[in-house]
Amino acid sequence: MAATNTVNADLARERQRATFDPEQLTNFLYNGAERTKRKRYLQNLALQDLKKMGFKQYATLSRMEQYELELQKSAYAFTMGDKLGLTDPLEGHYFREAIMPHEPAPYNLHNSMFIDTIEKMATEEQKAKWLPLAKSYRLVGTYAQTELGHGSFLRGLETTATYDPKTKEFVINSPTITSTKYWPGALGKTANCCVVMAQLISNGQHLGMQSFLVQIRDLDTHHPLPGVTVGDIGNKFGYQGIDNGFLRLNNVRIPRENMLMKNAKLLEDGTYIKPKSDRLIYGAMTFIRAVIVGDVGRGLAKAATIAVRYSCVRRQSKIEPGAGEVQVLDFQTQQYRLLPQLATAYALLNAGRNMLLYYIKVTANMNQGSFAQLPQLHALSAGLKALSSWRASEGVEVCRLACGGHGYSAASGLPKIYVDVTPACTYEGENYVMVLQTARFLLKCMSELQQGQQLPEMVTFLQTPPEGRSRLDERLELSDLVAAFEHRTARMVREVAGKVQGAVSQGSKSYDAWNNNSVELAATGTAFAEGYVVMAFAETMSSFTGPLKSVMTALCRLYAVTVMTNNLGDFLKDGYLSSQQASMLQSRVLDLLKELRPNAVALVDAFDFPDGVLDSALGRWDGQVYEALYDYSLRSKLNEKEVLDAYHKYQRPFMESQWRKSDLPVTSRL
Amino acid sequence: MAATNTVNADLARERQRATFDPEQLTNFLYNGAERTKRKRYLQNLALQDLKKMGFKQYATLSRMEQYELELQKSAYAFTMGDKLGLTDPLEGHYFREAIMPHEPAPYNLHNSMFIDTIEKMATEEQKAKWLPLAKSYRLVGTYAQTELGHGSFLRGLETTATYDPKTKEFVINSPTITSTKYWPGALGKTANCCVVMAQLISNGQHLGMQSFLVQIRDLDTHHPLPGVTVGDIGNKFGYQGIDNGFLRLNNVRIPRENMLMKNAKLLEDGTYIKPKSDRLIYGAMTFIRAVIVGDVGRGLAKAATIAVRYSCVRRQSKIEPGAGEVQVLDFQTQQYRLLPQLATAYALLNAGRNMLLYYIKVTANMNQGSFAQLPQLHALSAGLKALSSWRASEGVEVCRLACGGHGYSAASGLPKIYVDVTPACTYEGENYVMVLQTARFLLKCMSELQQGQQLPEMVTFLQTPPEGRSRLDERLELSDLVAAFEHRTARMVREVAGKVQGAVSQGSKSYDAWNNNSVELAATGTAFAEGYVVMAFAETMSSFTGPLKSVMTALCRLYAVTVMTNNLGDFLKDGYLSSQQASMLQSRVLDLLKELRPNAVALVDAFDFPDGVLDSALGRWDGQVYEALYDYSLRSKLNEKEVLDAYHKYQRPFMESQWRKSDLPVTSRL
Repeated sequence: MAATNTVNADLARERQRATFDPEQLTNFLYNGAERTKRKRYLQNLALQDLKKMGFKQYATLSRMEQYELELQKSAYAFTMGDKLGLTDPLEGHYFREAIMPHEPAPYNLHNSMFIDTIEKMATEEQKAKWLPLAKSYRLVGTYAQTELGHGSFLRGLETTATYDPKTKEFVINSPTITSTKYWPGALGKTANCCVVMAQLISNGQHLGMQSFLVQIRDLDTHHPLPGVTVGDIGNKFGYQGIDNGFLRLNNVRIPRENMLMKNAKLLEDGTYIKPKSDRLIYGAMTFIRAVIVGDVGRGLAKAATIAVRYSCVRRQSKIEPGAGEVQVLDFQTQQYRLLPQLATAYALLNAGRNMLLYYIKVTANMNQGSFAQLPQLHALSAGLKALSSWRASEGVEVCRLACGGHGYSAASGLPKIYVDVTPACTYEGENYVMVLQTARFLLKCMSELQQGQQLPEMVTFLQTPPEGRSRLDERLELSDLVAAFEHRTARMVREVAGKVQGAVSQGSKSYDAWNNNSVELAATGTAFAEGYVVMAFAETMSSFTGPLKSVMTALCRLYAVTVMTNNLGDFLKDGYLSSQQASMLQSRVLDLLKELRPNAVALVDAFDFPDGVLDSALGRWDGQVYEALYDYSLRSKLNEKEVLDAYHKYQRPFMESQWRKSDLPVTSRL
Repeated sequence: MAATNTVNADLARERQRATFDPEQLTNFLYNGAERTKRKRYLQNLALQDLKKMGFKQYATLSRMEQYELELQKSAYAFTMGDKLGLTDPLEGHYFREAIMPHEPAPYNLHNSMFIDTIEKMATEEQKAKWLPLAKSYRLVGTYAQTELGHGSFLRGLETTATYDPKTKEFVINSPTITSTKYWPGALGKTANCCVVMAQLISNGQHLGMQSFLVQIRDLDTHHPLPGVTVGDIGNKFGYQGIDNGFLRLNNVRIPRENMLMKNAKLLEDGTYIKPKSDRLIYGAMTFIRAVIVGDVGRGLAKAATIAVRYSCVRRQSKIEPGAGEVQVLDFQTQQYRLLPQLATAYALLNAGRNMLLYYIKVTANMNQGSFAQLPQLHALSAGLKALSSWRASEGVEVCRLACGGHGYSAASGLPKIYVDVTPACTYEGENYVMVLQTARFLLKCMSELQQGQQLPEMVTFLQTPPEGRSRLDERLELSDLVAAFEHRTARMVREVAGKVQGAVSQGSKSYDAWNNNSVELAATGTAFAEGYVVMAFAETMSSFTGPLKSVMTALCRLYAVTVMTNNLGDFLKDGYLSSQQASMLQSRVLDLLKELRPNAVALVDAFDFPDGVLDSALGRWDGQVYEALYDYSLRSKLNEKEVLDAYHKYQRPFMESQWRKSDLPVTSRL
C-alpha cells in the first residue's frame, strides 16, 4: 500500500472527539495490558517478517499462486511459532491471524483435526507410533469424513473398512460415487495421510463408524499410492488458497493396527469390542463451536472496522443544501447500517469469551466425573454457533454494501472476509441442525419443569409467568432488556412445546410432530441464543467504569433494541410490549445511533487490528484510502502488459470482421 | 458434465406428482407458446454452438482466462446475433443468457451505455460521425462517470474539461487522485474510446457536468494515447471476466465537437447554452431499473431452481427412526428456506414485467407531451429496483446455504449467481438512495392529500383510514392481503410525515428533519415497493385458471404472508392485526409450505432454464448431481499435475526442515 505519514484529517478528528480511551477497551478485549502488548509484539513481528519476504497480496493472485502463497506462509508460521515457543492457543491464533488474515492454511487440519484425532482416539501404542511421524511432518494429514452424498448424517457414510482376518488387514473401499470423500481441507494435493471415517465390517457384520489411518501418497515421491485416486475439488466460494479434496479408495489395504482403538476395538480374530462412552467427543465438538463464536465475531469486527473508518473518510452528497459534502457516517441510514453491526461484533466477541469460560468450567467438572452440565453446554454451543455465524455473515455483507462500489473490490478486504466467515454456517454442524438441537434441549427442560423438576441455572427463566408485562421505558435498563428476551424465549418454548405435545396427543408420531413444528422450533433455539448474548453482554458491564461504561452500555442497548425492533411481533403478540413501548424502542434506536456516532471510530480502533491484518485499502488506520485503491489497481495481473495477448487473439479479429462490413477508413486516431 | 440418459428417480417422481402442467406456466412467463418456442430455439442453438467450440467452464478458469473467454463468447454473441437478426431486446437477452450465464461481457457497455449515450445526447451531425464508427467496432467504447472519490453524487465529480477558445479544443484533466475514473466496465483493457463525464469550464466559469467523447487508445496499436493512463482495477467480488478500469487524463485535448451537444451547447467562442429539460434522462434511468427488477428476479429463479432440484435429489438424515434417509425438501425447515424464495422469484419476475408495461405506457404518454406520470414511474422504479435487488441477493444466499457444503463449490453455480446479482444493490442508484427517493414521493403525495388534492391512482390507498382492522382469516383472501400491505404503507407514510412535519414546526431545518427520520423513511419506501409487488402478483391471478390458478394463488399467499410474518410488528403495532390473526398467519405459512411442496419441482421446471444456463452440477434437469460434481473436480487446475511444483518448492523443503529435528527413518511407505 502507498506509504504516507499523514492521517486523513476527518479520521484524526474522529479520534480526537472520542469520549473514552480506546486503549482501555483494547486491554479488556485482550485480557489485560500485558497480553495486549504481547499480542502486538507477535503481530508486528509477523507483519514485518512478511514484508521482508516480499509476498504478493493474496487478493491479486490466481488460485494456484494463492495455494503456493499459503504453503509458504504456513511454513513460516509453524517454523517461527516453534522458535517463539508459542504454546498459548490465543497467542498462536493472533500470530497466525497476522500471517494469514482470512486466508486458509493448508496445514491447519494437520495440526488440528488430524493430530487431535490421534491424540483422542488412539491407544497409547498407536500414539507412540503416529504422533512423532505427524509432529515431525513425515506425515502431513487431514481428516476425511464428509462424502459426496453424505454430510451431517454420520451414520449414512458409505466408505467401508472390511476386516480380513487372514492377513489381519482392513480393506478400504469407496463402493459408490456418493461414497467419494469430498471437501476435506488439504486432502487434494497436500496431505500424504488421513484419518478416514468408514463403516467397519467384520465377519459380515456392519459395526458402525470407525476412524482409520490411511496413507494416501508415497512419503518420498508424493505420488498417490496404488488404489488411491485423489485430487483437488476445484474452484470454490472462498478457501481458494487451500486444496479441499476428493478421495476414492479401491481395495486399499491397511494393517489392523491402523484402526484408532482407544474406545472401540477390533481383535485379531475380527471380534468387535464396543466403546464405553462417547460423551468426551461431545466435549470436543462444543470446544470447536465455542471457538467459532469468537472467530466469526472477530470477522465481523474487522468488517465493521473497515466500513466505519471508510464511512468517516468518504464524503458524498450533502445534507444541507449549499454546504459541503458530508462524511457518509453522518447519514442516519449509514449509522443504522453500521453501528448495530459494531454492537453485534462486541456482543458476539463477548458471548464467545463467555462460552469458552463456561466450557473450561464444565470440562473441569467432567474431569472430576460430573457430566451434569454437558447438556447445557452442548445446547448453548450449538445455538451460539448458529446465531453467531448467521449474524456475522449477514453483518459482513451489510458492511460491504455500506461501502458502495468500492466494497466490491478485493482491495476492500471485505469479499475475503465474507467468504471466510460464511462457511461457518455450514461446517461443524449445519446451522438449522444446530438450533434444532438447542430447541430439543429447551423442550426437555420445559417438560422437566412441568414434572416439577429443578431446572439448570441457565434456563431457570423458563419459569417466567406467561402473563407478564414489560417494564421497559425510555431509560432502557439493561435488566429490563434481559427480561424481555427471557420472556420471549419462555413464551416461544411454551408455545411450541404445547404444539408438539398437542400433535402427539392427537395421534401424531413424535417425529412427525417434531418435523411439523420445526420452523418454530428453529426460531425458538435461535431466540434462546439471542437472549444469552444479551444477558452475557449486560453482565459484562460490571467490568467497566466511567466514560467507557457509558459507551459500552449504549452499545449493549443498541444490540438488544435492534434485535427487538427487528422482531417486534415476538414481543407485541402476547401483549408483553405495548404499542407505545414498541414506538419508544424504535425511536430510542435512533437516539442510540446519535449517541454512539462520535465514538464509532474509537470503538473500532479498540479492536486493535493492524493494517496488515485488515488487509484493506478502505480500512487503513491512516485513512489514505484512495491512494491505496489506486495502488492496488496497478498491481492487477491484467496490467502486466499494456496490450494483452487476448486483444490480438480475440478482440482484434472480431473488430476486423466487423470493419469489413463497413467502408470506413482504417486510422489510428480520429 | 457427465453424460447420462437417466433421470434421478426422486426427481422423476416429483415431476409425476405435480398437479399442474408446467408448460402452461412457462408459456405464461415467456408471453405465449410461440415466444417460448423461439426462446428455446435460440438458447439451444447457442448452447450447441458453444459445445462445438469446446469452451472451458467459466468456474474452472483463472481471471485472465475468464476475460479471454468472455471476449471470445462476446464475439460469438454479436456475430451470431447479427446473423440471426435479433432485434427484439428480449430475444437478444435470452440468446446472450445462454452464451454467458451470469458471466460479464466486455462489449456490454459498448452496446448499451456508450452507443445509447451517443444516440440520446449527440446532435444529428455528431451521430452521423460517431455511430458508424461505434457500430462497426472501429471504436469499442464505455461510459466513464464514477470516480475514485465520487459515486452517487454526480455534481461532486472532479474531472475537468476546460475549453480553450484558441485551439477550439477541450483540455481534459484528472486534477486529483480522487478524480481518477474508476469502475467503468471494459475501460481497463478493452475500450479504445469512452464517454467521459466532466465539469465543463469555459471562460473561467464552472458550468456543470457534460459528456465528452474521448479516444483513449490508438485504434491500430491499441496502446494508450499520450496523456492517458489506463488499466484494470484488479480482482473483485465477481465480474472477474470483465476489465473494470481506471483512467487518468493529463491535458488530453479533444476537439470542441466531441462534447455531446444535443441538449447543452458550447459555442466556438466559449459561450455556454443551457439545456431545455432533463426529464428524458429520468425516463432512461427508469427503464434500466425496470430491467434490473426482472433480471435479479431471474437470478433468484435460477438459484431456486438449483436448490429445489438438489433438495429433492439429496437424501440426508431421517425423520422416522428406522426408515430410510429422506429427501431434504421433506424437512419443514428446508421448505421454509426455499419455497418462500421460489415465491419471491415469481413475485419479482411479475413485478418486473408489470413495471416494464407501465414504463411503456408512461413513455407513450410522454411522447405525446404528457409528463404527469413520470414522478410515479420514477418513484416506483427506484423502490422496486432496491427491493428486488435486496431480496434477490439475500434469497440467492439462502438458496446457496440450503445446499449445504456443495453450495460453496463453484460447481453449484450459486456463487457465480450471487456475485452477479448483489452488485444490483449498488449500481444504477445505491439502494438506500433509491428507497429514500420513493419515500420523498410518498410524502409529497401525503402532503397533497392533506391539501385536498387528487392522488395519482398508484397511491390512492394513502386515503385508507388509520383506524381500520384487518379482515384476514384462514382463507387468506388475496384482496385482504393486498389491503394489509396498503394499510401498512399508509400508516407508515402518515407516521413519518407527521414526524418530519413535527420536527420542522419545532424549528428543525427541513434537511435535518429529513435526515433525522431517514431510517423510517427508507423503511417506508421499501414497504411501498413490497405492497406493490403483492398487489401486482394478486392481479396476475386473473391470467390463470384451473389447477395452475390454485398453485399460483398459494404461491402469492406464501409470498405475502411470509413478508407479513417477517414484519409482524408493522401490522400488530396499531392493532390492525390481532394477535390471534398473527398466530393464524404464522401457522398458515406452514400449511402453505405443505400445500406447495408437491409442486416445487414443477414450479422451478416452469422457469424453463436449460442446464447450460443454470451451469450447475446441483441444478441439473436429470438430477445426476454427484457424477457432475465429481466430473467438475477432475477439471481443477490443481489436478493438471499429480505432484505440483508447489510441493517441490515450498512443501517438501518445509517438511525436510522439520524431519531434521527428529531421528525417524526416511521411508516411502509406513
